[in-house]
Amino acid sequence: MKTKDYQKGLHILAELSSENLSRLTDAAPFIQYVQEQIIKNGLSQLGDVQHNFDGGGFTAVVCLTESHLSVHTWPEYGIVTTDVYLSNFMKDNQDACRNLYKAIRDFFEAEEINVQEVWR
Amino acid sequence: MKTKDYQKGLHILAELSSENLSRLTDAAPFIQYVQEQIIKNGLSQLGDVQHNFDGGGFTAVVCLTESHLSVHTWPEYGIVTTDVYLSNFMKDNQDACRNLYKAIRDFFEAEEINVQEVWR
Repeated sequence: MKTKDYQKGLHILAELSSENLSRLTDAAPFIQYVQEQIIKNGLSQLGDVQHNFDGGGFTAVVCLTESHLSVHTWPEYGIVTTDVYLSNFMKDNQDACRNLYKAIRDFFEAEEINVQEVWR
Repeated sequence: MKTKDYQKGLHILAELSSENLSRLTDAAPFIQYVQEQIIKNGLSQLGDVQHNFDGGGFTAVVCLTESHLSVHTWPEYGIVTTDVYLSNFMKDNQDACRNLYKAIRDFFEAEEINVQEVWR
């Protein structure tokens, strides 16, 4: 096997601050929005899991042919953690990865607390 | 909102090398195994998405009350990328996070190429 030939993907990890509470408390509008962004960026969705916590935030994970993205919200702290991981197997997806991350950030009208890019 | 009071969670990101091809090509045994590990570590599953690629590897994402874990396999390169992210909202889950990661590594009988811990 040719471990050395593996083409690393870009994984963006971010912690965001948002005061838009309505965006932090219901997974459904986020999923609808992010599905549009997935299509817009030429990616394809395999499935998703979403869950609204009682009186709290939500968790949403979308599995993509190109890997996955996740969002975990903490309205009690005004915090969103998100990660977007896209492989570069079939084509270079690093622009799509950054676009998708920025679209998520914009959905929450969020400020960036911390963002890091990991190639893996 | 009290952004400063947010308790960061541990996110482990790893790239693994495995020669056990049967483990890299079917999501179902992995999901069954990891569900047992989730219970063993006192965590709770919300749902999962799994997909076997034609003639290739698989992608599996498990959404947890405590955040999520993912696995993407590349049998053609003998590579597995995995991440395990557990919040510390209700209790300190860092031991569970490391245990779960090690259980995933052991499932694939894998060598570690790169492992990093990110607090977020």
